[in-house]
Amino acid sequence: VTPHKLNIVPFVSVDSMMKLVLAIGVETVLTEMAQYIEQDYANWKNFDKTARVASHSHDGVIELMPTSDGNLYSFKYVNGHPKNTKQGLQTVTAFGVLADVASGYPVLLSEMTILTALRTAAMSALAAKYLAPKNAQTLALIGNGAQSEFQAIAFKAILGMKQLRLYDIDRAASHRCAKNLEGMGFSVTVCNTSQEAIEGAHVITTVTADKQYATILTDNMVGSGVHINAVGGDCPGKTELHKDILLRSDIFVEFTPQTRIEGEIQQLTADHPVTEFWQVVSGTAKGRSSDQQITLFDSVGFAIEDFSALRYVRDKLVQTKHFDELDLIADPDEPRDLFGMLLRAAAA
Amino acid sequence: VTPHKLNIVPFVSVDSMMKLVLAIGVETVLTEMAQYIEQDYANWKNFDKTARVASHSHDGVIELMPTSDGNLYSFKYVNGHPKNTKQGLQTVTAFGVLADVASGYPVLLSEMTILTALRTAAMSALAAKYLAPKNAQTLALIGNGAQSEFQAIAFKAILGMKQLRLYDIDRAASHRCAKNLEGMGFSVTVCNTSQEAIEGAHVITTVTADKQYATILTDNMVGSGVHINAVGGDCPGKTELHKDILLRSDIFVEFTPQTRIEGEIQQLTADHPVTEFWQVVSGTAKGRSSDQQITLFDSVGFAIEDFSALRYVRDKLVQTKHFDELDLIADPDEPRDLFGMLLRAAAA
Repeated sequence: VTPHKLNIVPFVSVDSMMKLVLAIGVETVLTEMAQYIEQDYANWKNFDKTARVASHSHDGVIELMPTSDGNLYSFKYVNGHPKNTKQGLQTVTAFGVLADVASGYPVLLSEMTILTALRTAAMSALAAKYLAPKNAQTLALIGNGAQSEFQAIAFKAILGMKQLRLYDIDRAASHRCAKNLEGMGFSVTVCNTSQEAIEGAHVITTVTADKQYATILTDNMVGSGVHINAVGGDCPGKTELHKDILLRSDIFVEFTPQTRIEGEIQQLTADHPVTEFWQVVSGTAKGRSSDQQITLFDSVGFAIEDFSALRYVRDKLVQTKHFDELDLIADPDEPRDLFGMLLRAAAA
Repeated sequence: VTPHKLNIVPFVSVDSMMKLVLAIGVETVLTEMAQYIEQDYANWKNFDKTARVASHSHDGVIELMPTSDGNLYSFKYVNGHPKNTKQGLQTVTAFGVLADVASGYPVLLSEMTILTALRTAAMSALAAKYLAPKNAQTLALIGNGAQSEFQAIAFKAILGMKQLRLYDIDRAASHRCAKNLEGMGFSVTVCNTSQEAIEGAHVITTVTADKQYATILTDNMVGSGVHINAVGGDCPGKTELHKDILLRSDIFVEFTPQTRIEGEIQQLTADHPVTEFWQVVSGTAKGRSSDQQITLFDSVGFAIEDFSALRYVRDKLVQTKHFDELDLIADPDEPRDLFGMLLRAAAA
C-alpha cells in the first residue's frame, strides 16, 4: 500500500485486525505468518538485533522492541502488568509500527495485542516443525488463557496436530478454551492435573501467566522424545519448568542474550549450551536428531517475529482493505516551510 | 481525558495539532510548554534517562526516545533523512506516545513533527531565560528553515525579544521566514552574511541543516557577553561552531552522555567541563554569572522535552477537543478470552 498522500499512514485498529484475520481465516493467517517468520529467520544475519528497551516500575514494565533488516524497520510497544486484570484491563497490550528505512517514513501503524498472540503461536508451531517428533499428533496445552486457542490452531494448521489435552489451574478457563475451539476439528480432553495433560503428548506447550518462578512441569513428568514449547517463562524471575528438565533437554532459543535474562535458561549458568533457532532454519545447526531426544524451545518473543507479523499485515492490506488512514506525517507544500503550513491552516 | 471506552486512545493528527495550536495561540503554547519543560527539568532526578535508541542506515537514522518520571511514560519515534527533501519529503518526521505507568496503557498518540519544532523552540527560549544577558532584545537567527519561525516566536513570547536578524545561505528562506512573521510585532532585518546577522545580537541561534562539520560561526565573530543557542549540531558528525568558540564559552547541555556524542562538544575532550541545564533550573548550578561571559546552550533535543510536550498536549485535549479516537487497545469482555472476542466479531 503506497498511500496516495504523503501525510497518510495506514492504521489497523483492533476492529480492523479482527476483520482482516476473519476475512483471510485464522488457520491461513497463522500458516502464512509462520512462513514470513521463517523467511526472516533465514535472513537473521542482516537484522539489527538488540534486547528490549525496558522501563520497569512497581507494577509492571513498558518495553520497546525495535529491529530492522536494512529495508524495513519495526518496533513494538508492549506492556506487562499482571495486576491489570483486577481492573478489567489486559495484562499485555501492544501496538507497533513498520517503517521504510530509506525515507524513515512509517508505512503501517497496527494494534498488536491480537497480532502478538498470532505471531507467538505461529512462531511456536514453526519451531515445532523443526523440533517436534515425527508424526506428532497430541498437544498438551498447559495454561488456557488468552493465547491458548491461537497456539492450538497454529499447531493444527502447521503440523496437523488435532488431539488436544488442556489443563489450567482455573478449570473454567479450560472449558472456555474447549468451547471456543468447537467445530474446528479438534479432539479435546480437559484434564484435572498437568500430569494427566501430558500423558501421551508429543508436544507440551506451557503458556501460563504466573509472574514468578513456578514449576508447571517437574522432571519425572517428562518422558523421552517429546518437544516442549515453553512460552510462559518470558521475563526475569518468571519461569515454568524445573531446572532438571532443562538439563536433560537440547535447548533452542531465539536471541541468546535476551533469553539468558528472560527465558527458562535464566535458571542455568550463562555458558550452558543453547542453539539459536535461526541456525536450524538456515541449516547450520541440527534441529531434532533422535527419537529419544527432548527438545525445548525456550520462547520469550523476539523483535524479528513482530517485524514479520507487521510485514505480513502490511502485505495483506491491499487485499483486505481493513485499515484506516491516519494523518500522522506533516506534509507542508515546501519541506522547509513548516510554519507556513500552520499559517495556511489558520487562513483556511 | 479519560477515554470512555478501554479500547480508545486519543489521537492528535497533524490537522488536529494545527487546530490545537491555532486555538490556543502559538505564543501561549510556546510559553506554557516552556513552563511544562521547566517543571520536568526541576524533577530531573525522578526521570529514567537513556540515550536515544538509534537504527542507522545509509541515508539516515530512525530513533526511539523513551523516558518516564514514574507516573507517565513517553517515547518519540523520529527519523533524520537529509536527502528526503529532494523527493518532497520531510527530513525529520516524528510521532509519539504518552502512557500511564501504573497500567501500561497508552493515553495519547500524537503527531510530533510540528510538536518537536514547538518544544525545541520552547526549550531554547527557556534556556535563554536563565542564560541570556539581561535585557536582551536582538536575536540573530542563522538558518531560516522549518524551525526558524518557532524559534523567533518563542524568544519574543518568553524573553520579549523583538529585533530579528536573519541569515540563510538560501536567501529565499530568509525572506519566507520574514514574510511568515509579518504582523507579529517583530522588527526584521534580512542579512547578507552570518557576520552581518550577529552584529549587535544579544542571542545567536544557529539552526542550520548541514549534516557535516560546518563552521557557521568562527571565533573572531563572537563578542563577549552573548548567549549562543546552538540547535543545529545534533548528531554525530554534525556541528555548527568553531571549536575555539566552545573553549571561550561556559557550556550548558541537556543530558551529558547524549550531548558528548551528538552536540557541539563532540569537538572537545570527553572531560571538558559542562553544566547540565537541570542544575541551573533547580538552583544547584549557576546560569549566567557575568556580563562578559559567553554562554552556550549546546542543544541536541532530549526525551524529557518530548515528554513535557506530550504532557502539555494531553492536558489541552479537554479544552480544545481537537483529537480523534483510535481503537488501539484490544478490550475483550474477559481479559483472558482474547480469542472469544474474535469469535464474537465473526458472529456479529
